Amino acid sequence: MFMTLKLQKLKTLLNEVQDLRSVGDLLEWDQQTCMPSGGGESRAEQFATVKKLAHERFVADEIGQLLADLSAKGAAGDYDSDDASLVRYTKYEYDRKRKLPSALESEIAQHTSAAQEIWVKARAENNFKFFQPALEKMYDLKHQEAEAIGYSESIYDALLQEYERDMTAAQVKSVFDPLRAEIAPLVKAILPRVDSVSDACLHQPFDVDKQREFEATVIKQFGFDFGRGRVDVAVHPFEINFSPDDVRLTTRYDPNFLNPSLFGTMHEAGHGMYEQNVSPTIRRTPLCGGTSLGIHESQSRLWENLVGRSRGFWIHFYPKLQAAFPHLAAADLETFYRAVNRVSPSLIRVEADELTYSLHIMLRFEIEKEVLEGRVRVSDLPEVWNAKMQEYLGITPPNDKLGVLQDVHWAAGLVGYFPTYALGTIISVQLFERAIADVPGIPAQIERGEFSGLFNWLKDHVYRHGKKFTPTEVVERATGGPLNSAPYVKYLKTKFGEIYGV
Amino acid sequence: MFMTLKLQKLKTLLNEVQDLRSVGDLLEWDQQTCMPSGGGESRAEQFATVKKLAHERFVADEIGQLLADLSAKGAAGDYDSDDASLVRYTKYEYDRKRKLPSALESEIAQHTSAAQEIWVKARAENNFKFFQPALEKMYDLKHQEAEAIGYSESIYDALLQEYERDMTAAQVKSVFDPLRAEIAPLVKAILPRVDSVSDACLHQPFDVDKQREFEATVIKQFGFDFGRGRVDVAVHPFEINFSPDDVRLTTRYDPNFLNPSLFGTMHEAGHGMYEQNVSPTIRRTPLCGGTSLGIHESQSRLWENLVGRSRGFWIHFYPKLQAAFPHLAAADLETFYRAVNRVSPSLIRVEADELTYSLHIMLRFEIEKEVLEGRVRVSDLPEVWNAKMQEYLGITPPNDKLGVLQDVHWAAGLVGYFPTYALGTIISVQLFERAIADVPGIPAQIERGEFSGLFNWLKDHVYRHGKKFTPTEVVERATGGPLNSAPYVKYLKTKFGEIYGV
Repeated sequence: MFMTLKLQKLKTLLNEVQDLRSVGDLLEWDQQTCMPSGGGESRAEQFATVKKLAHERFVADEIGQLLADLSAKGAAGDYDSDDASLVRYTKYEYDRKRKLPSALESEIAQHTSAAQEIWVKARAENNFKFFQPALEKMYDLKHQEAEAIGYSESIYDALLQEYERDMTAAQVKSVFDPLRAEIAPLVKAILPRVDSVSDACLHQPFDVDKQREFEATVIKQFGFDFGRGRVDVAVHPFEINFSPDDVRLTTRYDPNFLNPSLFGTMHEAGHGMYEQNVSPTIRRTPLCGGTSLGIHESQSRLWENLVGRSRGFWIHFYPKLQAAFPHLAAADLETFYRAVNRVSPSLIRVEADELTYSLHIMLRFEIEKEVLEGRVRVSDLPEVWNAKMQEYLGITPPNDKLGVLQDVHWAAGLVGYFPTYALGTIISVQLFERAIADVPGIPAQIERGEFSGLFNWLKDHVYRHGKKFTPTEVVERATGGPLNSAPYVKYLKTKFGEIYGV
Repeated sequence: MFMTLKLQKLKTLLNEVQDLRSVGDLLEWDQQTCMPSGGGESRAEQFATVKKLAHERFVADEIGQLLADLSAKGAAGDYDSDDASLVRYTKYEYDRKRKLPSALESEIAQHTSAAQEIWVKARAENNFKFFQPALEKMYDLKHQEAEAIGYSESIYDALLQEYERDMTAAQVKSVFDPLRAEIAPLVKAILPRVDSVSDACLHQPFDVDKQREFEATVIKQFGFDFGRGRVDVAVHPFEINFSPDDVRLTTRYDPNFLNPSLFGTMHEAGHGMYEQNVSPTIRRTPLCGGTSLGIHESQSRLWENLVGRSRGFWIHFYPKLQAAFPHLAAADLETFYRAVNRVSPSLIRVEADELTYSLHIMLRFEIEKEVLEGRVRVSDLPEVWNAKMQEYLGITPPNDKLGVLQDVHWAAGLVGYFPTYALGTIISVQLFERAIADVPGIPAQIERGEFSGLFNWLKDHVYRHGKKFTPTEVVERATGGPLNSAPYVKYLKTKFGEIYGV
């Protein structure tokens, strides 16, 4: 068969796989937003069937043979071409998926379901001992998974690469360590002053319909296309998509607190704009979608924090917010700006402010790495957790519910996942800084409620590529340099130094 | 292999097919209710992939062999057993699907899509000639389909049986002819008196949220389970389900006219309750679902008309409706009852009243049968249509848009489908009459807003069986007699005779 025919055949097979994956995502979206409570059992069956078919068809020998034939240097085109990128990325994913024994995969899937149920109960009852055996088994299974996939340095790498395909634990450590060294003293300096900023103006009644309307205006101006997307309500907000032309955001409204939906919607819109703007030339293929969780998170946090929590943004939007909620008249722009940037070391990661957030992540990264490498026992986790919380944030959880039991991730088998949150934050500042260097008018645009300069830069340097380039490649091609936490540190020092006068 | 093992294998294969079919239905529901406008292209691809997989897996040789082995008399159990019914029904569907050449199937699918687009344009422009070639081709393709499937009497039977698997055109004709003979004179007698009933009270502003709330109360009392179902908005309302535990109704609200959503929701709830109450023992198999379009329509029309347009129903609910819409105080119960039962011979089928509705159906049935049998040419359809309208309803459409071009069905390849609407109406009265004979307290219950007597009778005699029995069997087992339009005629004469004094 000629190479072009082989490529065509590969694409046809992958189109179907991609369709099935998208359908699985729709089943998931519907379950979280619409499905009546009674529909759970049937939905689980339907989801399992679609997932199984998508998997079987993807790891088929035929696809492996085509990938092998097309992987010869230059066979599918230049490195940057869509076709060569498709073969390169798909081969990476294929090889990884083929390495995992299906018996182990089933066992993990089964235990993931069981462990989450146990975690829910353990957390509700503040009982780590009840969760411990399930967590030990989970780490044992993830250990087996990592061994099956293989690694050269740390066993952690094998799991991390599920989410960041060309990163290693050593690399993560090399950016986290200096970051922690810089943030920890800043947090310590600000801690005595946290009460100098009040967020009382955010804790008032806010009509939910008006919240929805205001947020829609904001993300539409960002560049989120409502002709190819929508926003719904979900208990645990997320972004999901079934093609670049059908991107679903979710949010949750608190009628007495502005933040959850306001910043949550900007956050999810950041994910959503990434997906909406993947190049149409790679749609319906495995390349279609954000390249890694870290790069994805860089987009959500860029729009949520670097834009949405900036003074410039509110210069334009605060009068409009006040018009929607006249009782905000009592708070002036500066009061509001400080309120949305209030620092408050918290026990709970998902409630953490911009300054302390990364510390929560580093704690989890260090712990899960040590457990996986056999240097910390699962039974010691509560103690290790609490010691690190005291060291990094100056607070000790009063119980495990507010400590080691707070996140579902480990129960859900997501080991190696946490670092992506902080990597995304670090990358968001690198990208933002570079965008402004390339398009100096961006800050002034933002003050006028215009985002086309920023949006187009991101579209050009990040969005359109989908998975064509690895996360490291995206950072290097977009910023001209490697992953680097210095811009993030500078940003935090400048912003929070000014707000808290330290 | 032992029979029990074969049966188990068959069920496993069919479970997956059923999952894929349900997933296809979710794609459809989402497209009609939620999908952003830009999502159409990807959705069409996803739908095609899922449909193709479901089809391929269903018509697989392995299933054919298992069905052949299990079809030996008694091999799967007694006639009434779930297992024997599964083999019997699935073999019917399998044989039918295997008879259709896949090339013809693709051609029909393609032409269906093209013909509908042409129809939309032809209808908008009131230009039958523009539609004619597409319709001629559609009838030619349906002719080929019918020949491939085979028939013993009329070629029409092969198409009708896609929707009513054990009925024939001759049978339909034998109930339609006497029905028309009885209805036509009644319509003629009422025609001069239509203005003695006014429906002005229904044409007022009705707050949409209050409509939604009232309708939810009504269908919940009917027996629709909101823990296993929901109601959304769609341009063309429908019922769809992904299991008995996940049944979705849709409706459309007119803020100035009560009928569309009020009676539309009762109608769809009738479909929905049928699906929600299929026996759990046949879930996730091809038996799970209403047995035919006619029996399905009997349920929607029973709840919409025999219950929802009855005096007894409004004795209980009208005070509640008046409480929701205080401006209805001006209309008393009798005025309201007459208003919702107003007769008004209309050009448009979907706007027809209970009395004249069947005449619209008969007209279409007769015409499509004659075209298929080669006794009427497609080019003559406008003329034939208009003549029959004049004959049956005493009105002639002023143009084809209000005549032969009004329904999408033929453009969508739905030839043989129309009779199911009238069959359902006829059967609804047969079932209702028998339910009352068995449970004489039903009418008094309805006047108290209680529906358990009726609901449980229907659940026992119709709903729980799913597709275990053919439509004819359902009618005979439930009523003790064959399909018969006499109860329907009696019902119309009594009800409309009283309202119009004829």
